[in-house]
Amino acid sequence: MRYFEQFQIPAGEIVSLAGYDAGSKAGIVKAESEALLAAEQEQLKVLQYRLYSENKQSLLVCLQGPDASGKDGVIGHVFAGINPQGCRVQSFKQPSALERSHDFLWRVHPWTPQAGQITIFNRSHYEDVLVVRVNKLVEESVWRGRYTHINAFEQLLADRGTKVLKFFLHISKEEQLKRFEKRLSDPTRHWKISEADYTERERWDDYIVAFEEALSRCSTEQAPWFVIPSNHKWVRNLAVARILRECLEDLAPQLPEPTVDLKDIRKRFHKAKKEEQGENGK
Amino acid sequence: MRYFEQFQIPAGEIVSLAGYDAGSKAGIVKAESEALLAAEQEQLKVLQYRLYSENKQSLLVCLQGPDASGKDGVIGHVFAGINPQGCRVQSFKQPSALERSHDFLWRVHPWTPQAGQITIFNRSHYEDVLVVRVNKLVEESVWRGRYTHINAFEQLLADRGTKVLKFFLHISKEEQLKRFEKRLSDPTRHWKISEADYTERERWDDYIVAFEEALSRCSTEQAPWFVIPSNHKWVRNLAVARILRECLEDLAPQLPEPTVDLKDIRKRFHKAKKEEQGENGK
Repeated sequence: MRYFEQFQIPAGEIVSLAGYDAGSKAGIVKAESEALLAAEQEQLKVLQYRLYSENKQSLLVCLQGPDASGKDGVIGHVFAGINPQGCRVQSFKQPSALERSHDFLWRVHPWTPQAGQITIFNRSHYEDVLVVRVNKLVEESVWRGRYTHINAFEQLLADRGTKVLKFFLHISKEEQLKRFEKRLSDPTRHWKISEADYTERERWDDYIVAFEEALSRCSTEQAPWFVIPSNHKWVRNLAVARILRECLEDLAPQLPEPTVDLKDIRKRFHKAKKEEQGENGK
Repeated sequence: MRYFEQFQIPAGEIVSLAGYDAGSKAGIVKAESEALLAAEQEQLKVLQYRLYSENKQSLLVCLQGPDASGKDGVIGHVFAGINPQGCRVQSFKQPSALERSHDFLWRVHPWTPQAGQITIFNRSHYEDVLVVRVNKLVEESVWRGRYTHINAFEQLLADRGTKVLKFFLHISKEEQLKRFEKRLSDPTRHWKISEADYTERERWDDYIVAFEEALSRCSTEQAPWFVIPSNHKWVRNLAVARILRECLEDLAPQLPEPTVDLKDIRKRFHKAKKEEQGENGK
């Protein structure tokens, strides 16, 4: 069995997050996790070079989860070693007035990865069935229609060779409070604290319902959702890294054939070398 | 003296690349270079976090140099450890038909860094006074006018808080041939070999003249050019890392003040904790 299968939501499954242990260690021993993560990253680098060189397929990673669930942490710890030439992060904050005057996928579409690239969405189009739903920013009939649009959009990407992996970073309500407490005692992160952390927290249960519906309605074979136990950061990072590595292995990107006649190039190369040595000898 | 000053082209200087030793070791001992680079990268990470948090200034790094001078290598070795959330690479290949139907800065402008970000241009708007000039793709009067446009454009960026650093990766013609030879013996890089490598090489001297004019006309205080001795990869990587670190130090990005009343947040935090513990105790 592939490691990722234990976290993947099968298409059509009705998700109840109460059935997923946010504090699970997923069979990982903490003392070993750092070395294991480093090994995964080495493999990710090799696979990413192949993806980039092949220049045909691409990978879109969507990170979602409550505040303080570790979206920034995953980016910093799992992706930091990856060559930035083939990896790009796009964050989605509150939409601008212009963005709100378009359909909800308009601001997302331009940032989907081109062939050969990995793109990470820090938050994503799913905000439009999460924060928008919980805070009643649009009519129910509007957000209800969006699951279908999301599935069609992700199918469009898949048909062009983009694998979409969606990670729900699952933390408990208690763990969130602990992390807010930690932020309060770390002056380098005081600027990250916002009123919204606390007001949104009061809507925790509504968010869980919204997450559950997104996970249930939008996990497909070509764009699966994974529920990542995230109370332990070392479990979260290793699980995400492994899933990525396995999915990239499944994509099996191939180094392209040379576009030139290597024999001919070798000949030209030796001619150039001789001529230049001759010139220098004069 | 700041380390970078030895590589910086003073504004107004007429550059002759014959006067710059591509094989220089710049006072660096090879055996120490790896540890020194790692130390620079640690500092870069801290400074980048501050730049990102401050969310006011930004940094644009332009990499230029002959084929095989190490543009990709700098990205992979100097920037690989940086948090991809605040660092983006944009490559400029042959312009599309649409891009050619606009002014030459049109395709570049959208990719300049937003506040808090580092953007790396792998090739840049300088291609329009380099490959375009050498291959006579536009009239001389057209490319001649571009130096002024480039300086005005970079001033515009500087006025909005973007520091522009431009690195010319200086290798000798012999070193380039050696690197082409290496590619020929490395199957994982055969796909990178192109006819153009050899045809462009025949125009080496024309390229040097074009580089010299770009360096001479477009090195300014707010957007300086640096000539990096790049025959030795370990010199090149360490020199670029040091210059970046020093320039980021000069920008002196500050962690922003908290946007909330921390006292008030602490109170709310403790109230939430008590209530939830009460609930769990029920």
